[in-house]
Amino acid sequence: MSELIERLSAGLPAEAVLTDPDVLASYAHDMAGFCPAGTPAAVAVPRTVEQVRHVMRTADALRVPVVPQGARTGLSGAANAVEGCVLLSLLRMDRILEIDPVERIAVVEPGVVNATLSRAVAEHGLFYPPDPSSWEMCTIGGNIGTGSGGLCCVKYGVTAEYVLGLDVVLADGRLLSTGRRTAKGVAGYDLTRLIVGSEGSLGIVVGATLALRAEPPQQLALAAEFPSTDAACEAVCRIMEAGHTPSLLELMDRTTLRAVNDMTKMGLPETTEALLLAAFDTPDPAPRLHAVGELCTAAGATEVVPAEDPAESELLLKARRAALTALDAVKGTSMIDDVCVPRGRLAALLKGTAEIAERHGLTIGVCAHAGDGNTHPTVCFDAADEDEARRARASFDEIMELGLRLGGTITGEHGVGTLKKSWLAEELGPVSLELHRGIKRAFDPHGILNPGKVF
Amino acid sequence: MSELIERLSAGLPAEAVLTDPDVLASYAHDMAGFCPAGTPAAVAVPRTVEQVRHVMRTADALRVPVVPQGARTGLSGAANAVEGCVLLSLLRMDRILEIDPVERIAVVEPGVVNATLSRAVAEHGLFYPPDPSSWEMCTIGGNIGTGSGGLCCVKYGVTAEYVLGLDVVLADGRLLSTGRRTAKGVAGYDLTRLIVGSEGSLGIVVGATLALRAEPPQQLALAAEFPSTDAACEAVCRIMEAGHTPSLLELMDRTTLRAVNDMTKMGLPETTEALLLAAFDTPDPAPRLHAVGELCTAAGATEVVPAEDPAESELLLKARRAALTALDAVKGTSMIDDVCVPRGRLAALLKGTAEIAERHGLTIGVCAHAGDGNTHPTVCFDAADEDEARRARASFDEIMELGLRLGGTITGEHGVGTLKKSWLAEELGPVSLELHRGIKRAFDPHGILNPGKVF
Repeated sequence: MSELIERLSAGLPAEAVLTDPDVLASYAHDMAGFCPAGTPAAVAVPRTVEQVRHVMRTADALRVPVVPQGARTGLSGAANAVEGCVLLSLLRMDRILEIDPVERIAVVEPGVVNATLSRAVAEHGLFYPPDPSSWEMCTIGGNIGTGSGGLCCVKYGVTAEYVLGLDVVLADGRLLSTGRRTAKGVAGYDLTRLIVGSEGSLGIVVGATLALRAEPPQQLALAAEFPSTDAACEAVCRIMEAGHTPSLLELMDRTTLRAVNDMTKMGLPETTEALLLAAFDTPDPAPRLHAVGELCTAAGATEVVPAEDPAESELLLKARRAALTALDAVKGTSMIDDVCVPRGRLAALLKGTAEIAERHGLTIGVCAHAGDGNTHPTVCFDAADEDEARRARASFDEIMELGLRLGGTITGEHGVGTLKKSWLAEELGPVSLELHRGIKRAFDPHGILNPGKVF
Repeated sequence: MSELIERLSAGLPAEAVLTDPDVLASYAHDMAGFCPAGTPAAVAVPRTVEQVRHVMRTADALRVPVVPQGARTGLSGAANAVEGCVLLSLLRMDRILEIDPVERIAVVEPGVVNATLSRAVAEHGLFYPPDPSSWEMCTIGGNIGTGSGGLCCVKYGVTAEYVLGLDVVLADGRLLSTGRRTAKGVAGYDLTRLIVGSEGSLGIVVGATLALRAEPPQQLALAAEFPSTDAACEAVCRIMEAGHTPSLLELMDRTTLRAVNDMTKMGLPETTEALLLAAFDTPDPAPRLHAVGELCTAAGATEVVPAEDPAESELLLKARRAALTALDAVKGTSMIDDVCVPRGRLAALLKGTAEIAERHGLTIGVCAHAGDGNTHPTVCFDAADEDEARRARASFDEIMELGLRLGGTITGEHGVGTLKKSWLAEELGPVSLELHRGIKRAFDPHGILNPGKVF
């Protein structure tokens, strides 16, 4: 037994230290393609904050890298193993410690699954908005690490906006508490927000105090068919410009619609170039939906179909939620971009993406949180076809380059990981990058926390 | 002429470097009491980013401290001069560069007055929520520096939530761009949020991209009279627990009501112990107001008076907005606490504050953003009475201590400055403080940016 395993085992129950090579391999990757992973030395699966501190103290003493993990549904390789590392899985720290309707907060451990929390707070008439596609599997800790978004963001914003305070185990095992339980607070630097989205590179989140909202009425949706992505994007701009705040505003292009139909037999319109879904969760959504429908028609929609009731709305959303899985099934592998551009540049991004697909002879489907300008161009390819895989990777990068050129960001909600590391340097520039390194040094002087990720 | 003035003047127009001692003295303070200020060496009033860079390069070369300033309406001494410093006033960088209704953003220079921006965006049907009491005077740069709030926060949150990206001149004159123009983005560490609320200690904000919202309907308010602060705080908890999201939820105690009447002759009820104001800015506020009124009555309200129309609502808000000025007039000087506690502890904070006032033989009026648990206990005293001033200072500190004991924070929206520096250390603890210092070093290795403030 290596010194690492021996010392880890000294402070953890036997079942919390995994070393079987097959098990190690099964923990080595998140869901991102094209991201290499090293071979971990061990997986630690603590149940308590003290056990996490023991892992970090051990790793610090031996200068062993530590990679924290949630459900490994991430899409950028941030949770992938680094050679010889300890994979620190927070999955068993999965308790909801408190739900308080007066304070509108929940206090949770990092391994709580997003959907579990959402359902638990709903029982108190409360609402935890962040809803990434993987919400039935992904954990709050993972959401915090990557800064996840979802369909809700056009009205409710991203995960960061719901994190009031954190308990964090630092690289050397010390415990840091950030933020607050109160609705407001500006005492000192915003370390909470600094840690959200830092992909485990600054500390291990072992607890979170989350802001909740009052549960809104069930949302009512409409679907609008457009003869071009240009027209659909024009409608998005007109809807936002007119002062509407839909609870979601989503776009699926023809490739995506076909993929969803192939998988689900849902019978979505396949001849249309783009389908827009808009919904409102206000007490009286009908006039809003009507106005949005008219704006869609004015922008060139050929058909506008309001849902009859929340159940029909939910069906439409199911189609949208199935998009990524459906696109993945088209050719067996997919690579999901996450470029976010100003709304006014959405049409240019979609047009440019279509050109990139054509130039590389590839299938790229686009679904988008259109109201945010956050697109997920998804390259569908056969991983066994080396040339196609190479073209897929190239097109993926070209889409990020295009996004930056259009004034956007390389990641709206999926994070950087290893997949977009070189692109992050491009987006941030040298001054920002130097400050990032200074902050990293202040938190993790020996560089043991998820090294080689983000920057 | 000193070397500092000579070198400053080499890159700034003559009228942008002020050295007259009377002028220097007039710039040396913000509006906080009990905060010492040094004598500045100069005031620099640049109009361009390049001029700000020149100031910082000069200060960096000569290791001279720099204190950035907006309208100096701050309440914690953060903008006070440090001995021998350059006061860097951003007041003349006051252009609104862009308002974009599709992207729902505004791009501004730091010297833009909050009310000027709010009115300008309203012309586009847009809404910039943060509304500190000083909104007619304070600047966006100052709001960003201190992390300001206001009456809007219970529904719309604080300044930080509206800052998408920043242009920042660093200590050595380099230019940093943080954040984005897009609705979402998680590329790298959240340097934007780190700088918001850092009180000029990490860099000089020279530009900001702000998120806007669609303008809501005019709000409709009700006023409820309570026989005790306990009953009023109970009503606050029941209102939030019932899932209401008012656009404001404010409390004034009897001392405050009397002070406002004395100043404005508004005829507010003086025999009531606490007045609660609640408002909604939804399309159909009447049912909500009715429900809130019933909750108030159930909590013990003796009178519930809904406003007839938005104009009458505005009158009620005027009374609330006059509170701090009115309390200041009671004995000529006032000292405003900014403690924020969990809503459930609001009653305990108000009770404890009353005890502190009695023990010290002082008048302390409380107005509060009650929906946030953010209170402003305001100590009224005669500054010429040395003993009373000493007791005022002691009571001010005791209220912060009480706030921390109740699980709150020493500052909900006013910042730390010099006034609450020792209390910040108390709130954060040594681990957090060490990380604060590490971050400060990464941004400002020679410690020239607003030294001696925050921590």
